[in-house]
Amino acid sequence: MTMAETEPIVFPSERLEEFSTRVFAHFGIPEADATLAASVLASSDLRGIDSHGVARLHAYFEMLSANRINPRPELSVLRESPSTATVDGDNGLGLVVGPKANEIAMAKAEEAGTGWVSVSNTNHYGIAGYYVLKALERDLIGWSMTNTTKLVTPLWGAERKLGTNPIAIAFPGKEEPPIVIDMATCSAAYGKIEIALRKEAEIPRGWAIDGQGEDTLDPKQMIEESSLLPLGSDRERGGHKGYGLAIMVDVLCCVLSGANWGPFAPPFALRQEIPDKQVGKGIGHFFGAMRIDAFIDPDEFKSQIDEYRREMQSAKAAPGTNGPLIPGDPELEAEKIRSKEGIPLLPAVVNDLRDVSKQTGVPFE
Amino acid sequence: MTMAETEPIVFPSERLEEFSTRVFAHFGIPEADATLAASVLASSDLRGIDSHGVARLHAYFEMLSANRINPRPELSVLRESPSTATVDGDNGLGLVVGPKANEIAMAKAEEAGTGWVSVSNTNHYGIAGYYVLKALERDLIGWSMTNTTKLVTPLWGAERKLGTNPIAIAFPGKEEPPIVIDMATCSAAYGKIEIALRKEAEIPRGWAIDGQGEDTLDPKQMIEESSLLPLGSDRERGGHKGYGLAIMVDVLCCVLSGANWGPFAPPFALRQEIPDKQVGKGIGHFFGAMRIDAFIDPDEFKSQIDEYRREMQSAKAAPGTNGPLIPGDPELEAEKIRSKEGIPLLPAVVNDLRDVSKQTGVPFE
Repeated sequence: MTMAETEPIVFPSERLEEFSTRVFAHFGIPEADATLAASVLASSDLRGIDSHGVARLHAYFEMLSANRINPRPELSVLRESPSTATVDGDNGLGLVVGPKANEIAMAKAEEAGTGWVSVSNTNHYGIAGYYVLKALERDLIGWSMTNTTKLVTPLWGAERKLGTNPIAIAFPGKEEPPIVIDMATCSAAYGKIEIALRKEAEIPRGWAIDGQGEDTLDPKQMIEESSLLPLGSDRERGGHKGYGLAIMVDVLCCVLSGANWGPFAPPFALRQEIPDKQVGKGIGHFFGAMRIDAFIDPDEFKSQIDEYRREMQSAKAAPGTNGPLIPGDPELEAEKIRSKEGIPLLPAVVNDLRDVSKQTGVPFE
Repeated sequence: MTMAETEPIVFPSERLEEFSTRVFAHFGIPEADATLAASVLASSDLRGIDSHGVARLHAYFEMLSANRINPRPELSVLRESPSTATVDGDNGLGLVVGPKANEIAMAKAEEAGTGWVSVSNTNHYGIAGYYVLKALERDLIGWSMTNTTKLVTPLWGAERKLGTNPIAIAFPGKEEPPIVIDMATCSAAYGKIEIALRKEAEIPRGWAIDGQGEDTLDPKQMIEESSLLPLGSDRERGGHKGYGLAIMVDVLCCVLSGANWGPFAPPFALRQEIPDKQVGKGIGHFFGAMRIDAFIDPDEFKSQIDEYRREMQSAKAAPGTNGPLIPGDPELEAEKIRSKEGIPLLPAVVNDLRDVSKQTGVPFE
């Protein structure tokens, strides 16, 4: 591999967002929905979460081309109460269904103090963090969860039965930035295994097992034969806790909504195997929104969040570090830089986008 | 240490519960509250969580003796909305304030679909799992969280700034037992460090740091100088995620209610240092309750939870294991055995109870 093949190429975020919008619109997705979906992808790229931005446009393109995703979904509310709703996403893009279901949660919160929406019949919804940032814009504490295609073993298992099932929640500050927690419930991201494979490097112990269920340091073994480990890695270090969190997300997103949980989650991309059994419709999401003033004076809350941040940052630093970070700060830092300097894309991603351009006729460069 | 000094002595659960009730009543706690508090402790002993049952009665006794806990609290609702309430626990026993605040969350859920209660000015509330089991009795999905006295470092810190901040949630089955998740957000329980110290054994890597913030295998160093690590242990294996979860619990329990968060949480026991600053009142809890039929047919939900259980159990087993466990099953197993055979108490715990008996005049044996 030469340098030229791995050096990233930088694009203005607006240009990538415009391209994504037009690609979505090409498939008959209504303009407003195409714009919305593209903004979710752009949010990921801006925040430095490269794996969930335009790097995934080719996979969405393939799924839309194969008619596996409905370009014009009509969401329906299957049940509701003052503070809850169950939504059927009509097999739309998660990037469209997610924001609309989140909107229902926020509207419920404004009426009833909190709002909680479980969603079935949907697809991959981008970064969990996007949704809780939208809640912050309305002075709400937002929650966001989704299940994903299977990649993770239950603790003491030796096969994929769970997704990486992320949880996000955010708390606004007053003068300081918000605290934004956005985390998968497995030990390490699948993307890190892929990077190690490309570099022909070993992975750290505690990330993955081989096909027999033994610890492995070989990224190829994880990818070809086996699974990621839940957060905590093994029994001694709390792997049962990460496994418990993954179940929690799965049940709230899927069992509560009537979506496919665990190993039955349909794949995100064409190349992934389709489970031989369905236990519901599509994948599932779960959104929550809480009105701060339903609990406490919002100004007081935000001042305390500022103080909270400073208190954590004041901790004596561990050797070789600058001390604790505040969740969400690295992504905010990336956003500051990338909104000015643009989004660096790997050549492989750029090639994918060129391919999408060629096949759809939407100009890319 | 001779065998006789370490062999547990077995007591019927009812007898321990009766003793706890009478000790609480001795301090002027109303009969109904004393009974309630004792039942929370008994639930912990029955479920095999020895650290949170009568083993803690001596600490409650000391705090009540020193007038650090209000024996006759009057709970007040500071704010409310259809689905939320903020409760001031009037510095009562957490074992009394917790169940009453949980009751408010459940009543809200029955009206509004879900109920969410953040509680300040309270004290240690026993096992988080107790509260979600109460919700199951009313066919609700229960959530329970609390902050605790500082023991855990933020990732990349080298000092105690956070509690062990547990999260519990439970989902009912139809023909099978419920899934009951109840987990601290640190890598390993403090009780395990104490056991290692008593045995003069090393602790596994990933549990704790020494006073300089370096990994330590020496339980004494953790106890005397430093901190537990968050779930995930280090940056590579997701320690930032456990740290994020600990913040989530802290904010929902304390910042949202006006309680003392992070290192400002008041101590559980007399021998622990009192923080030199207060940022709120007492410690904090957070309870949630969700009506299943606000989302989906409860019968369908429970059948799927049964199937969920079977699917996880069907996973190929990791070497040296019998395959994945279902969260809550080990505690249920303990309850089956202990409700018949009694609660085994270590001699040190029995001595503590005898001391409480001597000082209160409540007969123990």
